[in-house]
Amino acid sequence: MKIAILPGDGIGPEIVAQAVKVLNALDEQFELETAPVGGAGYEAAGHPLPEATLALAKAADAVLFGAVGDWKYDTLDRPLRPEQAILGLRKNLGLFANLRPAILYPELAGASTLKPEVVSGLDILIIRELTGDIYFGQPRGVRTCPDGPFQGQREGFDTMRYAEGEIRRIAHVAFQAAQKRGKRLTSVDKANVLETFQFWKDIVTDVHKEYPDVALDHMYVDNAAMQLVRAPKKFDVIVTGNMFGDILSDAAAMLTGSIGMLPSASLDANNKGLYEPSHGSAPDIAGKGIANPLATILSAAMMLRYSLGRAEQADRIEHAVKAVLAQGLRTPDIFEEGTTKVGTEQMGDAVVAALA
Amino acid sequence: MKIAILPGDGIGPEIVAQAVKVLNALDEQFELETAPVGGAGYEAAGHPLPEATLALAKAADAVLFGAVGDWKYDTLDRPLRPEQAILGLRKNLGLFANLRPAILYPELAGASTLKPEVVSGLDILIIRELTGDIYFGQPRGVRTCPDGPFQGQREGFDTMRYAEGEIRRIAHVAFQAAQKRGKRLTSVDKANVLETFQFWKDIVTDVHKEYPDVALDHMYVDNAAMQLVRAPKKFDVIVTGNMFGDILSDAAAMLTGSIGMLPSASLDANNKGLYEPSHGSAPDIAGKGIANPLATILSAAMMLRYSLGRAEQADRIEHAVKAVLAQGLRTPDIFEEGTTKVGTEQMGDAVVAALA
Ligand SMILES: CC(C)[C@H](C(=O)O)[C@@H](O)C(=O)O
Ligand SMILES: CC(C)[C@H](C(=O)O)[C@@H](O)C(=O)O
Repeated sequence: MKIAILPGDGIGPEIVAQAVKVLNALDEQFELETAPVGGAGYEAAGHPLPEATLALAKAADAVLFGAVGDWKYDTLDRPLRPEQAILGLRKNLGLFANLRPAILYPELAGASTLKPEVVSGLDILIIRELTGDIYFGQPRGVRTCPDGPFQGQREGFDTMRYAEGEIRRIAHVAFQAAQKRGKRLTSVDKANVLETFQFWKDIVTDVHKEYPDVALDHMYVDNAAMQLVRAPKKFDVIVTGNMFGDILSDAAAMLTGSIGMLPSASLDANNKGLYEPSHGSAPDIAGKGIANPLATILSAAMMLRYSLGRAEQADRIEHAVKAVLAQGLRTPDIFEEGTTKVGTEQMGDAVVAALA
Repeated sequence: MKIAILPGDGIGPEIVAQAVKVLNALDEQFELETAPVGGAGYEAAGHPLPEATLALAKAADAVLFGAVGDWKYDTLDRPLRPEQAILGLRKNLGLFANLRPAILYPELAGASTLKPEVVSGLDILIIRELTGDIYFGQPRGVRTCPDGPFQGQREGFDTMRYAEGEIRRIAHVAFQAAQKRGKRLTSVDKANVLETFQFWKDIVTDVHKEYPDVALDHMYVDNAAMQLVRAPKKFDVIVTGNMFGDILSDAAAMLTGSIGMLPSASLDANNKGLYEPSHGSAPDIAGKGIANPLATILSAAMMLRYSLGRAEQADRIEHAVKAVLAQGLRTPDIFEEGTTKVGTEQMGDAVVAALA
């Protein structure tokens, strides 16, 4: 089994190093190969997703990804900016299913900006479609406005679109995930305004026929954003498109107050996947040794479970993370009075120790 | 001065009746003319926005709108559904600037699902562009997928677009609103992915040159959704497009926990406007006399200020609303131990009494 390790920028290298340490501490050894991506890819090869990096990611059984982006690349042309690497990987590897759990660890309930009774025990799963929608739809660009009151002016434009097969396959992933959990699925759309999402709603409703044991409901995206704030625990699994999923999954992650704890998986049709923390590259704290590596370590656990068929090893890592939290160890982002503040390396070492 | 009164569906008629009572209690009398809209428009004239209703709205100096929608219309074809009335009014009246304050009244701090220290004193203004973006962009529909891996399948599609002039005029509204408040404006975009919003960002940056006294920053929509949950008080004025604004303004409203208190204004280029509560038609509690009329009453106050040039009367109404809250009167949606529960009518009467 070969794992491509793409640390990226900012805190990426520090946190990925801890996850690698954890992987190396398992009984079974995997072949790990590292390559530059994002700003680091641009520095090394003039492109955020160098050809060799993409080739490695394609050849590997799974990809462990850190984070990309740094203010110093803000002035580059868009195709050269770090985040293009992540879009390129998704598209080229066909990673259409993004799984974003939003879980509140009981020990960290105080970190949330929401009242404890609203979020304690929160455990929802957001499934975001990741290779369609307005992210990749053509045509797009800046053109002369062809009609209407602004005719003749410049206008920016993009195309939102979802084909039937794209909706069906993400719906299947979502229904199957719901079957393994609370058996409730909320499909988030904007069918009252968008043709794309009326179509989405119709197809999801059709796929539901194959999963009679799952309760399906439909919710408009504006209402979903409200309900996430009002009563997030009412959700079990949420499935939605790429754009709405981008917004809602970040909002849901922030409900926990501990985004440094949240992993994510982006899967293709054969459960090959890219695994990355839900947070970003945090260039402001890069190199200080204070970043929280747990989201990346938990991403490695997801990788073992979903792509490498090593559920037992995944369990071990997840238990080890719970154990270090129970020991009271906290990186600064989740630190509270009465707990022990540790740095990135110490946290990684503690997880390795707890594996035993 | 003529005001079109469009009560709509669900709790719309009850809450609008209270706002009308308040308007009638002012020294100056306005000409009020009522017309059916939404489901009520469909019942009366076979269309959610009957021609006579649209004509009245066009002829009036301002429109006071209740709410539209009821489950019983869910099976109608989309063009006949109640919410089409609101889209039609926005487009036909050119109401491009939607002002959505999210204010937390100190007396209602407990109603929020967020911790008091995170939201107490919250006072942000979201300015949502309301007649452009993917809401109205053409082409849209369901077609045969023209290319790519899903070629030949059906696909739903929509067009996102913003012309330069559309962005400029909403940016001016936003900068001017910021000048009257904390002088800070956050423009929310998704410039890292969408051509429309890279263009948006460029134009807003250009308009900023005319407002050097306002501090402008740019934020991606996913990050904005997170920051609204993490530290909403850091915002002053937010400006964004129609789709992102739909989602963020509802999330921001819900932060207060008292969406029954929040008014909104939708303005054209000459400050003619449509005023409506931020909440919906709540068919589940319609006719029970328990709906909170304060958002609608406060919408009438906004109308007096923005469209009718009666800032003093607007102040009077807003003070009266604060007074009834101080008296401890609460409709069920904002009721807490130790306060006095009242119904819709009683609340309207109390505001009228407090005007004196
Ligand atoms: C960096 C950006 C292109 C990306 C996205 O919008 O998908 C990010 O926000 C994410 O969610 O992974
Ligand atoms: C009813 C719907 C079309 C509308 C919108 O999406 O604009 C509503 O959500 C709103 O925000 O006023």
